[in-house]
Amino acid sequence: MRDPEHIRKVAKIVADSARDGKELVVVVSAMGHTTDQLIELSEQVNDRPDPREMDMLLCTGEQVSISLVAMALQKMGLKARSFTGAQAGILTDETHTFARIKTVQPSRLETSLRRGEIAVVAGFQGMTRTSDITTLGRGGSDTTAVALAAALKAECCDIYTDVNGVYTTDPRSYGKARRLHAISYEEMLELASAGAQVLNARSVELAMRNRVPIRLRSTFEPDDTGTLVTSRDLAPDYQICGVALDTNRVSFKLSVRQDFSVKESTASVHETTVDSTYLHYNSKTERLLDDLSSLGLNREQVNVVRTGDTVSQIEFNCEKRLSREAKEVILEYFPQNNGTILSVDTDVARISVVGIGATECHRRGDIIGALSAASIPVAMISTSNISVSAVVPAKYKDQAVKHLHDAFCNGNSLSEPKTTT
Amino acid sequence: MRDPEHIRKVAKIVADSARDGKELVVVVSAMGHTTDQLIELSEQVNDRPDPREMDMLLCTGEQVSISLVAMALQKMGLKARSFTGAQAGILTDETHTFARIKTVQPSRLETSLRRGEIAVVAGFQGMTRTSDITTLGRGGSDTTAVALAAALKAECCDIYTDVNGVYTTDPRSYGKARRLHAISYEEMLELASAGAQVLNARSVELAMRNRVPIRLRSTFEPDDTGTLVTSRDLAPDYQICGVALDTNRVSFKLSVRQDFSVKESTASVHETTVDSTYLHYNSKTERLLDDLSSLGLNREQVNVVRTGDTVSQIEFNCEKRLSREAKEVILEYFPQNNGTILSVDTDVARISVVGIGATECHRRGDIIGALSAASIPVAMISTSNISVSAVVPAKYKDQAVKHLHDAFCNGNSLSEPKTTT
Repeated sequence: MRDPEHIRKVAKIVADSARDGKELVVVVSAMGHTTDQLIELSEQVNDRPDPREMDMLLCTGEQVSISLVAMALQKMGLKARSFTGAQAGILTDETHTFARIKTVQPSRLETSLRRGEIAVVAGFQGMTRTSDITTLGRGGSDTTAVALAAALKAECCDIYTDVNGVYTTDPRSYGKARRLHAISYEEMLELASAGAQVLNARSVELAMRNRVPIRLRSTFEPDDTGTLVTSRDLAPDYQICGVALDTNRVSFKLSVRQDFSVKESTASVHETTVDSTYLHYNSKTERLLDDLSSLGLNREQVNVVRTGDTVSQIEFNCEKRLSREAKEVILEYFPQNNGTILSVDTDVARISVVGIGATECHRRGDIIGALSAASIPVAMISTSNISVSAVVPAKYKDQAVKHLHDAFCNGNSLSEPKTTT
Repeated sequence: MRDPEHIRKVAKIVADSARDGKELVVVVSAMGHTTDQLIELSEQVNDRPDPREMDMLLCTGEQVSISLVAMALQKMGLKARSFTGAQAGILTDETHTFARIKTVQPSRLETSLRRGEIAVVAGFQGMTRTSDITTLGRGGSDTTAVALAAALKAECCDIYTDVNGVYTTDPRSYGKARRLHAISYEEMLELASAGAQVLNARSVELAMRNRVPIRLRSTFEPDDTGTLVTSRDLAPDYQICGVALDTNRVSFKLSVRQDFSVKESTASVHETTVDSTYLHYNSKTERLLDDLSSLGLNREQVNVVRTGDTVSQIEFNCEKRLSREAKEVILEYFPQNNGTILSVDTDVARISVVGIGATECHRRGDIIGALSAASIPVAMISTSNISVSAVVPAKYKDQAVKHLHDAFCNGNSLSEPKTTT
């Protein structure tokens, strides 16, 4: 949604689908830079705005869009009715600005569909059980669309953006990127978590859990069927399905000096032994890891380097928005004296190779190999089930994407889909 | 509400009142030209937008304001919480874009006040019993404020605008206007109905019915106590309290030719007599007047001129927004053939002299006298209990205000208030 011109264009796509005889629920996001403008407005009155008030402010963006889309559809002679998130029955928890949908009560939408109306729903927003307005965070409109598709048992959830599907890497930054005709939920989820901005991870999880097929399509090419995101048995079996870039990470490296005089309380000073210090460090590390994971950090992706029996280094990277809290948590356990050294690097990029063959490629040394052949320094490598991520200095990001993409997404490892629908 | 700067200023006024230990509910309107901009946006997608969708769109303006005011108060260290009209319990009928408040269920606001919060409520909006969003029409924020003051049994309802009270006439157009320290609900209502834009008529009616004292104050002079609008026994007894100008009227003049061949059906042609034609005209006139009053036109203010036994002329003026419908109704009864002449004049202004002494002044001929002494032609005069209105060509509007104000608002007829609080 950009401007009134774009609203008419969207209405045209909707109208064409409606004329095919489909029952339609349309989820819309805010126009153009509305959300950013609202955030800017809030910063002018309060530099640390209350999340509840932020939600009250932000949800207006989508509300403007739904009313305009409904009006545009009515202008075309169609029956349409707009619904806020609350009116559409999107019930969330109380985590303002990043709420999770708890349940959907779509009875008003069902009534609207029965009346032959196109239901136009505000994405990105919901309501708590105490009738407070919440928003779902970046990409929240996708989540709304999938949640409604699941609740209404829709045949398919078409998500229109300015890109016509899922690519092996972002086509705006690397021209050799190839579009996938279909992809499994698991791979899509991994790509999304790895930074591919085409769909947010929550909406993919939700679609996977409810087996809602998603079609990623472009508003500029409404006749193109885009990329289908579906269950593994219906998707092609790529070894590597893509290379994702995430520039929104911060890298942490914590070095702990093996100083045996470290102690938790003066009462235990005489009992300090190598063993108890080891236990002491280890329990501290465990508690630190627990606290970090409760911040939302994936524990698997924290590298803990042990020298002999003791922890000597902890490495991980996290989203920028979590970095302040992560740093506070670390300093609570390991204050920067006693020889502890914490280095925080914000000038990094994380490149992930995604696909069921990724860990095998890593085991063979191919990923490190491709990067070192291109003289790209690697600060950290972490792995998950179907992806391997390398953290590199930010200035190498485009090169790293290019070399990993050329190595894994252009050859036989990326087979053309065996099934498309 | 103009911009973030103004929001901080408003928050400052609220904060000062809160520090006096008062429990506060603050009703805010949209910022600056937000409402006009939203209307413009809607016109770009649909020239005749659905009123329900219009309300969905317009209510966002106030929602932006409440969140920003709450944030600004929080920045000042105060506890504050924003509420949409729906959350504040403003329940209305289904008349979209011009809804009437049916009831107020302020339990959430009461809870908020008990918690020591300042409740910041979106004015101008409400919710139907089916959870649709409605707006209350121009000046709706005043109505919201008075309705909440009544429901919460507030001590007083302070309404802040850019004018510091009620004047004998609009001070922006006539420098000799004098501010009133207090005025009765009845007079304020008459001034509002006559076009004084300081408070809308509905909010005054509501205040009168619930005996809510209103103080009209200025955001630019927060220490000035403004004008108190209160019950007649507490207000001064002005003979004339002001002269109001309304440039938003259309004047209708319908001349009906006495043509005895007019008939309703060919079957009754031989029975047509003077009497039946008379009855025929009269019943038509009655039905016309019924239809006009159901459009919202005050029947008392329609002049029906009878020549002998028959109706020869019908004169009235109405709000511009009703003129198209009024014309259609008239032409239905009196098509413009058969010698009927309808003249519609949009280039008019209505000047009203308001106060319990107005009809007496008119009876003595003083109002017509003052206008004719200034050579101002009068198209029509109509009267109500406490006002006399003259319709004049628009170009004479300022002169008419000046002469009527000088004649009735500067002498002994405007006594200084006997009581102020």
